[in-house]
Order: sequence, then structure tokens, then C-alpha cells
Amino acid sequence: MKTESGTVDLGRFDFASGDEIENLEVAYETYGEFDGDSAEHGSASDRTQSGSNAVLVCHALTGSQNVAGYGSETTGQARAWWNDIVGPGKAIDTNEYYVVCANIPGSCYGTSGPASEDPEGEVYGTDFPPVTLGDWTRSQRLLLDQLGVGRLHAVVGGSVGGMNALDWAKRYPDDVRYVVSVAAAARLDAQCLALDAVARRAITTDPNWNGGEYYDQDERPTDGLALARQIGHIMYLSKSSMEQKFGRRAAGRDARRDSFPSDPAAAFFPYRDVESYLDYQAEKFVDRFDANSYLYLTRAMDDYDLAEGYEDDARAVAAFEGEALLLSFTGDWHFTTEQSETVAAAFRETDAPVAHHVIESDHGHDAFLVEPEKVGPPLRDFLDAGVEGRAVHDTDEPDADSGTDFAPVHASLFSQ
Amino acid sequence: MKTESGTVDLGRFDFASGDEIENLEVAYETYGEFDGDSAEHGSASDRTQSGSNAVLVCHALTGSQNVAGYGSETTGQARAWWNDIVGPGKAIDTNEYYVVCANIPGSCYGTSGPASEDPEGEVYGTDFPPVTLGDWTRSQRLLLDQLGVGRLHAVVGGSVGGMNALDWAKRYPDDVRYVVSVAAAARLDAQCLALDAVARRAITTDPNWNGGEYYDQDERPTDGLALARQIGHIMYLSKSSMEQKFGRRAAGRDARRDSFPSDPAAAFFPYRDVESYLDYQAEKFVDRFDANSYLYLTRAMDDYDLAEGYEDDARAVAAFEGEALLLSFTGDWHFTTEQSETVAAAFRETDAPVAHHVIESDHGHDAFLVEPEKVGPPLRDFLDAGVEGRAVHDTDEPDADSGTDFAPVHASLFSQ
Repeated sequence: MKTESGTVDLGRFDFASGDEIENLEVAYETYGEFDGDSAEHGSASDRTQSGSNAVLVCHALTGSQNVAGYGSETTGQARAWWNDIVGPGKAIDTNEYYVVCANIPGSCYGTSGPASEDPEGEVYGTDFPPVTLGDWTRSQRLLLDQLGVGRLHAVVGGSVGGMNALDWAKRYPDDVRYVVSVAAAARLDAQCLALDAVARRAITTDPNWNGGEYYDQDERPTDGLALARQIGHIMYLSKSSMEQKFGRRAAGRDARRDSFPSDPAAAFFPYRDVESYLDYQAEKFVDRFDANSYLYLTRAMDDYDLAEGYEDDARAVAAFEGEALLLSFTGDWHFTTEQSETVAAAFRETDAPVAHHVIESDHGHDAFLVEPEKVGPPLRDFLDAGVEGRAVHDTDEPDADSGTDFAPVHASLFSQ
Repeated sequence: MKTESGTVDLGRFDFASGDEIENLEVAYETYGEFDGDSAEHGSASDRTQSGSNAVLVCHALTGSQNVAGYGSETTGQARAWWNDIVGPGKAIDTNEYYVVCANIPGSCYGTSGPASEDPEGEVYGTDFPPVTLGDWTRSQRLLLDQLGVGRLHAVVGGSVGGMNALDWAKRYPDDVRYVVSVAAAARLDAQCLALDAVARRAITTDPNWNGGEYYDQDERPTDGLALARQIGHIMYLSKSSMEQKFGRRAAGRDARRDSFPSDPAAAFFPYRDVESYLDYQAEKFVDRFDANSYLYLTRAMDDYDLAEGYEDDARAVAAFEGEALLLSFTGDWHFTTEQSETVAAAFRETDAPVAHHVIESDHGHDAFLVEPEKVGPPLRDFLDAGVEGRAVHDTDEPDADSGTDFAPVHASLFSQ
């Protein structure tokens, strides 16, 4: 498979906030060969008429451009994060499609963000402009222009990457044929906004955060970032998956209890498997991610509202004439099946072909990463044939097996 | 109504951990007049035969002895925390019952805990012995002995106070006629264990916590305690109640954004109503609660397992020959309806009369405090006539209205 990994300088970039930076650098990777025309996407008619085999994949909050494990030096869960889905012969088949994935502005995997240096060589820190999800989409459009990609065959994203994909249907409705939003929503609900807010407070109350100016310190705000990540991790799992995976078990003998400070009285109680897991995950995370980026990206996610600037979601995507696939998971309480159904209803209102494919899963939000055997078939067939794809189901059609249609899907959510 | 507020010195107390302190002080309040005999509870037969009108109420994690608002100087949500339920003519009618409520060991409302002084006049801090829920129950038994109360008419508790009530049925099966456990469980599940663990880490990573030795410092670990409380608050509300109460609204103009540090880029985004609420609640909480107590009490809660020392829950309560009422709320994800059903099943296995009364509510775990009009009737009637009480329903009996029995109760949990 042909792969490419690089960083392009997109020049001056005007953020939605009104601020700008002189040089927005965007780190990206591509997999497979582009077979589309390389026409500039100057006119809408060009874009509408020209097809291509280009598929843009949008990464999740702390993900990277390294969607399938080639060429990049990212580590941990940012590395090859969708390797089960993207590759030769896989659901997003790199023998067929030219896959592009770019790191989003505000992140820390090569695209400009708070940890990057400004043109004078100084780290931006919290002088970096506020970033919105719309800024991510516009940076992706500009990158694709540089790569010579006009119209996309598809935009596919999971979690906040799925919101990013929806933003493509709203912002560049003529530029994309198929939109796939996996485990996402038109906007976050109050519970997730609250948890994200607490996570940010964990970072900003860490004295080592120091107002965001910690880059030349010996100590980084790792405690705060670790807490933020642990809150996130709990959001990504379901009640039942946590119960099955950890229960109330004590951690094994080898488990180390020293990630966080403790007091003598704590030693009377077991160090539990679930704590050991969260501590281990947090330790890995603080090595790979920047605390300010976590603030910036969660704020962009929290702020996003598909309907913004329009009367409602349906009008926001009314100009989109392609087809849309929403994938959701019954055990996901971060982005619920109900929220995907709301998005599906908006597309239905515009008469765009849309399918909302609900996947039974106990794996919570993480299902989009850990259940490739359930995600792959509808995704592959949708990229091939749209909503008519064989493995693509829709909540609006009676289920062939049970004869029932969209049923209460959360019955299993809190089952033990 | 006759009320009494005081502190008794129970002398040397041996904790389950094997540690002891020389003087366990317990702060308590009583409401109404005791009509029982004042026999010492020396022999089991005394206790079994003697009835009384005494009702022990067990408070929740950060609650106090001040269940109905008389005599105490506790503030905030610890003050008069069940005033809608306890009082003259109310569900727990103080004209009829002698209500006793005691602050639990490890807490900070007058009963000995980490913030108390040892006999040498030094603050215990984290030298205070580890506390278990069983220690709470034993301290309550000792207090009641001092008050001359042998057998109880009832033990009633909500949240971890409901676990405390269940522990009475296990530990002192002959001492109580009616046990009422509201919004509780036999043990916490992995998701709640995880959230509590993160909350404790928020406290212990606050540099002002200082290994628990902060009592002579100018600064207390208020940031960490505030974060812990915010995580707790989110657990007490439901997804749908948060969505209804706050949605994505920005806070009003008067809302102050200065509870936590922030950075310039944050100002581009709204300060949301849900953040303002959590910040306000946290500010109030850190004024009234001790950070070490929060560590101690959450550990006691997390550690509790009704089945401990027995083969299963049913055997743990097998000696209990009274009647039990479990109240649960459909929107509660901290202590779910399924968990209460598990407890009900244990009592059913022992042939103890038991009713599991499920209350439809969107208010999450907080429902036990904020829905007195739904909690009151079954509670009142159960205290009067046990499971045969008129307003007492049970999942095991067909619903008179719908003809269905125990149905998936979480269908509404994540509805918008």
C-alpha cells in the first residue's frame, strides 16, 4: 500500500474566534492511491461533477492522523487507532480508496496547537487562538486542496470525529458524496458538558498548569491531565462493560498503587482492578498528550452545535445532496442512540437518503473502536452502495428478524 | 415536638480495621418522644420481645444528624436534609415515632473523624483509623444503648444510608422490625467505584491536601474537594434531569466564572448554566465538609458488600425476621433499580416479607431527597403496616394499572 506522511503549511489561518495565526501547519497521512482528477476545487460545479476515491477520516478527541499505523511516530491509543477498519481489504479498503487523515488544529500530533511554536519560535501556550470544530473542518478542506483532492467520496468519523463528519455535510455539502458519523451527535448533552467541564477544572487547578504556561517547567500538569483522562475513560465505557471487565475485584499483586498520592488509612482497602486500569491508562496518556490541547479540544467539542446558524438540524444539512449513515451503539451513554436518531430525523426531513444503523453492544462509546466486526460491514457496504448497501440497516425500516422497529435500546444499558 | 441534640462519648471504640480510639464521640439528634421500655439491650430475647416507637434514620454520604432541621448548626445540604419526610404529620411522623439520627464515624458534624482531636488534643488527620460501614452500624447500636433504646421499630436510610439500613438487618437482625433502604444497593458497581476513586484522587493530588495534614495550614484542599463534589453531583442527577434543568444554556449574566482558574482562550466559549450550578454547589460544599472525611466515607461506602462474610446476600440477611422495603428510582444510575431488585430477591429467598417499590422519576439518585411526595406514602404506610401497607407496591406483584410486572425501567433513562 502506498502511504504518505507529512506536514503542510497552510499559511495564514483565520479562526472562527476572529483570531488568526500566520502559519497553520497540518500533519496528515494518506493511504492508497488517489484516482480522482486533481482539478482545483475552484468552482462548485467542478466539485459536484468530479468524483474521486478520496475518503477523509476524522479522528476522535485525542486521536491522530495515524489512522492505520504507517509512517507516524505517534504512540499509545493515538497510533493506528482504526487499523481494524482502514487498510487493504478492510472496511475502508485502501486498495480501493485514497484515505486521508489529518491531525486537527489545537491538537498535539504535528498540527499547530498550544504546544507549537509561533513564527518567533515561542511556544503559543494559551495564546493560541480558541479553536472550534468548524476550524477543524476548514483546515481539512484547505489540506485537501493542497493534496489536489476536490470532491470526496466520503467523510467518515467516530465520536467527535463523527461530529466533524456531520460538519462537512453542513459546511461543504457539495464536496462530499457519503457522510458517515459513528457514535456521534449533533451536540453534546448537559451531562457530558458537565463531565468535560470537571475534567478541564482538574487540569486548570493543577498548580503545574500555571495558567497554561508550563512548557519550560520541569513539571507538567500531569496529575490534572490524568484525572481528566480518567473521567473521559469512564465516559467511554458502559456500566455493564465496566461491571463485566472489572467488577469489584482487587487488582493483581503486581499492580502498583503509586500513580497518585494516598494516605495510610487507604491501605486498609483493596486497590481495585478498575483503579489499576484507570491509573495505567492515565499514566500512558499524560506521556502522549498535551494538557492545553485537552482544554482546547474538549471546548471545541462541547461548543459544537450542528444547528448553529440555522433554525434547526434539518436546515443545517438541507443543502447536502449526498447520503448519510449514522452508526450508534446501544450501550453508549456519551453519544446515545437517541442522539443519532435525532440526526437521522434531520436528514430524513431534507429527503437525503439516510440510514441509522443501531449496533447492539455492551462496550459503551468505545464500541466504535473495539467492535470492528460490527462496524465494518455496514461501513464497507455504505461506502460501496450508500444506504442501499446490503449490510446497512435503518431504524426506520422494520427489523427483518424481529418484525419490530426502533425499540427501546437502553434496556441493557444498566443491566448487570 | 420534643427534640434533643447532643454528643455522647461512647468510650473506646474498636474499628473493623483492628485499630481503636480511646473516645468515640457521636453527635446525634432525636425528634419526638420515646415510648418504648428503657431496658438494656442485654439479651436477645429482651430485644426481640420489646417493641418501641424508635426509628433510626441513617444519613447519606455527606449528610448529618440534622435530619429535620432542629437544634443543629449544620449548614447547606447537611441541614434538615429530610425535612420533607421527617416531622409532625409527615411520612416519618414525629408525633408517633421517636426518630434518632446520628452522624457517622469518619464524618465531620460532631462525631469523631479525621478532623477531630485525639485525647492529646491533636487533630487526628489521616491517623484516624480506617472506617467501614459496619463501624457506622456498631456506633449506632452503642448510641441507642446509651439512649435506652433496645429494639427499633424501624431503620430507614437513603443512598449509602440505605446500605447502612441493610447492614442493620444483617448485623442486628433481632433488633429491628422494619428495614427501609431507599435508593441503595448491596454494593457499589464498578462504574461508581471508578468515579469515587477519581474523586479521591482529585483530593489527594491537591497540593494543599499535603498527605492529609492540612489542618494547621492557611489553605485547605478546596480545589480537590470541589472537584470530588462535582463528580458526585453528576452521579446524583440523571442524564435527562440534567438536560431538562440545564440543557446547553449559557449561565445568566450574574454568574461568576471565578471558582476555578481559567485561560484567555476559555473566554470565547460560554460559561454554561450547568457549570455555574456545579461551581456554586462546590463552593458551598467545601465550606461545610472536610476533605479527609470525604476520603474516609467514600472508602467505607465503596468497600461495603452486604454479602461479606456470607455466601451471598440472602444468607447475609437470613436471620432477619422483620420486613423490608426497598425503594428505588427509575432514573437513578448511581444505585439502580436493578440493584434494589437484587436485594429484594435476597430477602425473598429467606421468606422475609419484602416489597421493592419502584418509583418512576427522572430526578436520578437525588429523587430520594427531591421527590418526597412519591417517597412519603409508601414509606409511611410501610412503617404503619409493613409490606401490606396500602401505598406499598412490589415488583413481584402485577401492576394494577398496566397488568405487566417488573418492566424494563430504564427506557426513560436516557431520553431527552
